[in-house]
Amino acid sequence: MADAAPAALYLPELPPVGAVFAPPDDEAHYLSRVVRARPGERVEATDGRGERRVLEVIRSRPDVELRVLSARTAPRALVRELWCGAPEGDRADWLIEKLGELGVAVLQPIDCERASWERFAARRERFERLATAALRQSLGSWRLEIREPQPLAAAIAAAGEGARFAALPGAARAAAADVPPTGHVTGVVGPSPGFSEGELKRLSEGGFRAVGLAEERLRTETAALALAAFWAVAAGA
Amino acid sequence: MADAAPAALYLPELPPVGAVFAPPDDEAHYLSRVVRARPGERVEATDGRGERRVLEVIRSRPDVELRVLSARTAPRALVRELWCGAPEGDRADWLIEKLGELGVAVLQPIDCERASWERFAARRERFERLATAALRQSLGSWRLEIREPQPLAAAIAAAGEGARFAALPGAARAAAADVPPTGHVTGVVGPSPGFSEGELKRLSEGGFRAVGLAEERLRTETAALALAAFWAVAAGA
Repeated sequence: MADAAPAALYLPELPPVGAVFAPPDDEAHYLSRVVRARPGERVEATDGRGERRVLEVIRSRPDVELRVLSARTAPRALVRELWCGAPEGDRADWLIEKLGELGVAVLQPIDCERASWERFAARRERFERLATAALRQSLGSWRLEIREPQPLAAAIAAAGEGARFAALPGAARAAAADVPPTGHVTGVVGPSPGFSEGELKRLSEGGFRAVGLAEERLRTETAALALAAFWAVAAGA
Repeated sequence: MADAAPAALYLPELPPVGAVFAPPDDEAHYLSRVVRARPGERVEATDGRGERRVLEVIRSRPDVELRVLSARTAPRALVRELWCGAPEGDRADWLIEKLGELGVAVLQPIDCERASWERFAARRERFERLATAALRQSLGSWRLEIREPQPLAAAIAAAGEGARFAALPGAARAAAADVPPTGHVTGVVGPSPGFSEGELKRLSEGGFRAVGLAEERLRTETAALALAAFWAVAAGA
């Protein structure tokens, strides 16, 4: 049995082994038109929460039909959660695409004193489509969860356990040894006009350790991506 | 004397200390309309090759006039050169913006067996504008040098000294200890359809060590950016 071109379907509800089913329209289209999978070929699917299935294509035209051959659970060593102030203009689009590709688990948009996530509700559907596309593209098992924006203080009050970092210009550079191999890590990046003094104080009191990412001043989305990339490299080392 | 909003002019030819001069139109516009610098304020300028000047704004309207107050040379610890296969569609635009922000010295576009940098000549001017904007934005002292595309074999034949890495899916994760603190580092990232077997052999024979960047499969521009971000963090640690 041949493998189709490397691809991963996103199926929030994964059927059990042995089941024969028709995937939702989006995934059927992706499989037949983009991946061009043919009967007899195998493809993978994930629920975006760590569960995977190997599927056999039974039919691809006119309707797609699939059979579940096997199931497995993907290990996740380090759960990465990124809190991010609003980037400028449409830069959130590629922020989300790239965080999704780099295996970030959660994006928590943060409304700050100097900038908030305007038009978030109107853009939400687009953001979700980008997260799904990044999941398929990356062959990952974890889909970026995009939370509702909230103020920094509320996010800190509700924060879970684990290491906490704040990416701040001029701080001592982050070190791979700071990245725990397992558990949970939270990193926060300021909005394009930066954090206020009050917000910096809150972060410090909340146990967020200041780390630098580059010699240069980075845009919000670049800093977020650099932190996610650093985590991706360090988490697997 | 007050400082204007943090900004860096890009002046390929920097006048000597004491000189009074009118900057080129682009930079004059940037200074008066974007930064909104006023007479008496100070701004910085760089030639994009490590030289910097502190400038005093003498006049900002109708014409900009500046005086050079002082000069310094920015240290550059590690010269980072990124060779990159062609990304899909317009993704080169933000690749260039982000490499520029992250302090990469050289982008060498690589024409590969499975994909080449089409329309490079037509997009060159736009690429250069993006590199200049990234330099200003980042307050850096080194402007991304964008070379003409060349085939992988030719690039390897002409490569300089220093550490060499190839970002390859599935390879053992890169470690900060692999990044030299000074000198020159070259990293190569494949085009969106990947390297051919022959190209992988050439890279291995050329002394390029395979390194992985993430558990997930990364798009070309994401891998390039992840490598640049990893270098930026590691180089300053």
